[in-house]
Amino acid sequence: MAVIFPSRRVRKTPFSQGVEAAGVQGYTVYNHMLLPTFFKGVADDAEHLKKHVQVWDVSCERQVQIKGPDALKLMKLISPRDMDKMAADQCYYVPAVDQAGGMLNDPVSIKLADDHYWLSVADGDLWQYALGIAVGRGLDVEIDEPDVSPLAVQGPKADELMARVFGEIVREIKFFRYKRLPFQGQELIVARSGWSKQGGFEIYVEGSEYGMPLWDALFAAGEDLNVRAGCPNNIERIESGLLSFGSDMRRDNTPYECGLGKFCNSPDDYIGKQALREQAENGPKRQIRPLVIDGEIGACTGSWSLLANGQQVGQVASAVYSPEFEVNVAIGMVDRTHWNPGTRIEIETEHGMRLAEVQDRFWR
Amino acid sequence: MAVIFPSRRVRKTPFSQGVEAAGVQGYTVYNHMLLPTFFKGVADDAEHLKKHVQVWDVSCERQVQIKGPDALKLMKLISPRDMDKMAADQCYYVPAVDQAGGMLNDPVSIKLADDHYWLSVADGDLWQYALGIAVGRGLDVEIDEPDVSPLAVQGPKADELMARVFGEIVREIKFFRYKRLPFQGQELIVARSGWSKQGGFEIYVEGSEYGMPLWDALFAAGEDLNVRAGCPNNIERIESGLLSFGSDMRRDNTPYECGLGKFCNSPDDYIGKQALREQAENGPKRQIRPLVIDGEIGACTGSWSLLANGQQVGQVASAVYSPEFEVNVAIGMVDRTHWNPGTRIEIETEHGMRLAEVQDRFWR
Repeated sequence: MAVIFPSRRVRKTPFSQGVEAAGVQGYTVYNHMLLPTFFKGVADDAEHLKKHVQVWDVSCERQVQIKGPDALKLMKLISPRDMDKMAADQCYYVPAVDQAGGMLNDPVSIKLADDHYWLSVADGDLWQYALGIAVGRGLDVEIDEPDVSPLAVQGPKADELMARVFGEIVREIKFFRYKRLPFQGQELIVARSGWSKQGGFEIYVEGSEYGMPLWDALFAAGEDLNVRAGCPNNIERIESGLLSFGSDMRRDNTPYECGLGKFCNSPDDYIGKQALREQAENGPKRQIRPLVIDGEIGACTGSWSLLANGQQVGQVASAVYSPEFEVNVAIGMVDRTHWNPGTRIEIETEHGMRLAEVQDRFWR
Repeated sequence: MAVIFPSRRVRKTPFSQGVEAAGVQGYTVYNHMLLPTFFKGVADDAEHLKKHVQVWDVSCERQVQIKGPDALKLMKLISPRDMDKMAADQCYYVPAVDQAGGMLNDPVSIKLADDHYWLSVADGDLWQYALGIAVGRGLDVEIDEPDVSPLAVQGPKADELMARVFGEIVREIKFFRYKRLPFQGQELIVARSGWSKQGGFEIYVEGSEYGMPLWDALFAAGEDLNVRAGCPNNIERIESGLLSFGSDMRRDNTPYECGLGKFCNSPDDYIGKQALREQAENGPKRQIRPLVIDGEIGACTGSWSLLANGQQVGQVASAVYSPEFEVNVAIGMVDRTHWNPGTRIEIETEHGMRLAEVQDRFWR
């Protein structure tokens, strides 16, 4: 595979210096920004993540800032989720949809004030959609990307490491809630969240100049905890059933197909509500399922078709060998006809035909 | 630098097999898709491009398809350019702007029919903005990304190679005009355009299945022309003054700042027109300028500040050594106070302070 270089368009992050010094070996690009994909190796990184604590440069979770008198009004237009129930310190997972109910993104939203929201977006310029809606409807809001770069601290020792840097108070932060905590005189939002199931936090680093000082503080405080630089891990996240927008689901999928129907509970007339009505009542015709694939599978660099009697009944875009569970774990979008646990389906990998079996649940 | 792997989210293209076989050495990601950055080396590739002919996988120039009764109405809202003057076979460079006149993208648009347009976009999900405007205003249009992957044929021998594959008629295609020409029974749009100044064409390959057959046909026909796989070349394009959206200009720039004021001639009330009025009358306060930078400069992996008496007076995001002109060529956004040719300005590169001089024109 070929190398990649940053530019102003494919941006470095406030933590790039630390990431490079830690020996990053792979990058991807996410929201026009570099995102590390592995350091020692995906399997080695996964094993370490499950035992110790890692610091992840997830600056690429860019924030769409929606601010102004009509901020809540706009949020209610683009969010199927009931925004009135959102607590002041809450992180809200919001599957944003278009007028046809198709997924545009699956951000985590944070309410900074009644007229001020951040959407921590998956890969895609959701701000352009929000801006289009705002301009089209003549809403009084400003939409931009603030200088905020999330840094994740993940793993079983994350509480201990974070307590050493931000104080014992971090232990009181509940899941998908946040506190504003000082670091070098700047108040940062610290949330208990992150794209693993190993526990941990995301620090919304507001002000690039705090990036490397915070990175260095975490590594200095965590030496005896065996802290390492890490990144979203493709083995751990598939085992955990964490969906990647753009891979596991896209605009041609609804939230119901992604198993996110419970987040479509807004009483307001959000965009796409009518289109989703039928699925809200009867369920989707296909849905995300965990799968095990037999044999050796190699890398999944695109989309693999699930086939039954020569007909496509779904596809897989995330698949990898799990050393912990000693099987090939995979995430698929599977037609209703074949989604029951135990169903065996042919799968056309880029390395040949294999057999896959639908599982009853993800591995954690 | 680290390696990058494709996925369903960071897509391969219909030509990836050919690109890999040709020995691609660098990739970037553009519109969620792989874009090669060099093959033998940027300087070697540039020299070859100027003498022979290259085939470029620019699939990442994704098309935003706008189709339906209100297609022209939407185009007139998002385009500062007079769409009524567009001929049926014309390619129109359109600097799309937001309500504040800030650049959202700089696509080339093609009119397929009165109710059917494609926008061949620079890096960014402009379709999300177009969709937001359409939904917000209740317009009757469909907006999606069709299965269209542009393939560029660039270089002084491009006419000869294209004539061998598509017939002598290609020589009649005028600059930024197109013809529909058959390839293996499929009609493809062939335009005289492309992101170099060496002359050539872009083929809008509709239907991924025609990708490798067309790639192979071009290489088979061009063996004695010394045809090679290439890609947008960072030396040639800076010498030529071709701007990269996201690097040389962004949302915080207006079309006037980018030297694109002549494309803001719409008589209609497009979004952003009011905001641009002052610059339309008095000109911008900063503008794109060619620069020469003294000394050795190394790679430009971000944005370099232009400084006068310690104050920032602009920045450079594209700079590289030109073997042909034997200087470091650069593209800067320079304040009016310092934009006159011959002005010497300090520049803070990532490898130390240098001196830059404003030029009166690009190198070709």
